[in-house]
Amino acid sequence: MLKFDEKKQRDSINGALNLRHEINKIADQLHAEGYKNICWLGIGGTYASCMQVVTHMKEKTALETFVENAAEYCTTGNHRIGKGTIVVISSVTGSTSEVIDGVRKAQANGAVVIGFVDVITTELAQMVDYEIAYPMNEQLKFFMLADRFMYLAGEFPRYDALYKEMEAHLADALIETEKEADAFGLAFAEKHKDDRMHYFVGAGNQWGATYSYAMCYWEEQHWIPTKSIHAAEFFHGMFEIIERDTPVTVFVTEDSQRVLGERVAQFLPRICGNYTIIDTAEYALDGFSKEFRGDISHLVIRVITNRIDMHLENINCHPMEIRRYYRKLEY
Amino acid sequence: MLKFDEKKQRDSINGALNLRHEINKIADQLHAEGYKNICWLGIGGTYASCMQVVTHMKEKTALETFVENAAEYCTTGNHRIGKGTIVVISSVTGSTSEVIDGVRKAQANGAVVIGFVDVITTELAQMVDYEIAYPMNEQLKFFMLADRFMYLAGEFPRYDALYKEMEAHLADALIETEKEADAFGLAFAEKHKDDRMHYFVGAGNQWGATYSYAMCYWEEQHWIPTKSIHAAEFFHGMFEIIERDTPVTVFVTEDSQRVLGERVAQFLPRICGNYTIIDTAEYALDGFSKEFRGDISHLVIRVITNRIDMHLENINCHPMEIRRYYRKLEY
Repeated sequence: MLKFDEKKQRDSINGALNLRHEINKIADQLHAEGYKNICWLGIGGTYASCMQVVTHMKEKTALETFVENAAEYCTTGNHRIGKGTIVVISSVTGSTSEVIDGVRKAQANGAVVIGFVDVITTELAQMVDYEIAYPMNEQLKFFMLADRFMYLAGEFPRYDALYKEMEAHLADALIETEKEADAFGLAFAEKHKDDRMHYFVGAGNQWGATYSYAMCYWEEQHWIPTKSIHAAEFFHGMFEIIERDTPVTVFVTEDSQRVLGERVAQFLPRICGNYTIIDTAEYALDGFSKEFRGDISHLVIRVITNRIDMHLENINCHPMEIRRYYRKLEY
Repeated sequence: MLKFDEKKQRDSINGALNLRHEINKIADQLHAEGYKNICWLGIGGTYASCMQVVTHMKEKTALETFVENAAEYCTTGNHRIGKGTIVVISSVTGSTSEVIDGVRKAQANGAVVIGFVDVITTELAQMVDYEIAYPMNEQLKFFMLADRFMYLAGEFPRYDALYKEMEAHLADALIETEKEADAFGLAFAEKHKDDRMHYFVGAGNQWGATYSYAMCYWEEQHWIPTKSIHAAEFFHGMFEIIERDTPVTVFVTEDSQRVLGERVAQFLPRICGNYTIIDTAEYALDGFSKEFRGDISHLVIRVITNRIDMHLENINCHPMEIRRYYRKLEY
């Protein structure tokens, strides 16, 4: 299978799940000390991950928790971030200037910062109050932390049951999904390689991922224009420009917002002949109880879209690591 | 001037400003009774207005205030909405199903709802706890309410000074801006009438308006594809697909996020030959102090884009009131 290393993938996921003890130690301590609210601070792809975890938490929690865009925070500010705030950030390189500035500002205002900075030697990794260094798996790391805070708040009684299934089955479930999705990914890439524009629709814990898949993968890495739209918003304007040949992909998840994705998926065939539905319910996910399938919907869709990416890169002869402008120019 | 009725426009704005006494009566009472947080609930265009007012409030307030998408609230829920929550909604028709369901759910959970429902005879207008019926001027109504809550919380000492200027000068400032922008609107419409895709970039209290201008005006009413992107996010992926001929419009405001718009405006000429900068600082806004210009940036840009709309509608022979699907089909 093109650019697929099963062992590496399994080790990556299981290694991330193993961070739970380290994550819990931090969460347990902060919970014991008491806190006022939790702010997920990011920009670009990490901002998207923040949106995902907040939607996930909203299903269960009465804690005050919110997303903040790092550049907006550095300009407009946010008076809710201060003493008693736990700020959570993630960074692959540790060098994103808006996040560095945002962390500095939050700390100056009295917040405590937990960082998932992959490179432990960076300034950002040194700045944060609690640092966990492990590559990739950003959403998984965020969700583990969120789940622990909700468990400690008495809002997630089935926490242990979920992580028992995660540790026993997540790596295999995702690996099998990716294998199963390979033929689909190839067919999709062949069909859409020349798209002048592609629409991606998503909801729930997949919304942030829909936004970042369109922007950080197709636009940034494949150089194909896209628009992402929340399934809830689809019927409030955007759908007027959809016609027979408009390429539209809908991500349907199994979390609380499944009905929003289903509504778009059911409507589209009436007005469009060039749509694709990617529904996590069509994948086996062996070992996962029905009640927990929604909690990993975004991870399931990520491995499916990864198959699209690998084939699109290959067919379009466009290596995903090249950039025109990003970190190539001063701006 | 095409489709421009100066008297009607002046009366509309001054009539909206006159609502302040009615608005303040409600805000003063709720403040006196005490409340926990303020939720701005909307979908589509009203969701966008909610985003605008929350960004505006963030500059000043330590109150807990947030945006909630009505369809997401009806599925995922939000445990922060309950007893002690003031929910604010706006609706032109009073018939948007997601908002009706959202109001019902919020009230069942103990929240108090303030409605700006234009048609007082609708079910929605009857459902809300406090109703203010007045056509158009959605952002102005939201901002007046927000400003009053912040004033009462001791966070807006210059409140009276702002509204003195608003009542004396807002209508004229917007009318003069619209006249001044007419030639620009015509030239823009002629240049972009055939765009296959148009990018709109905005930040601050204009971000929600950027999102809805792209979606609710160009897509829904002109049937021209668009993508809106927050200026903070522009450099984090999307800009890779911009080339010489890509049509990009940047809205630059005078609120706290001005620097984010300026950053995009300064960078664009290096990679694009088909960009437009709409900067509120170029308009006189007679009678407004420098400190308050940012508070009306979104209103200033709205009348400028209105000139684009009127000419685009005319040139493209596409009446803005026609819809393909919205409320034409069941979905």
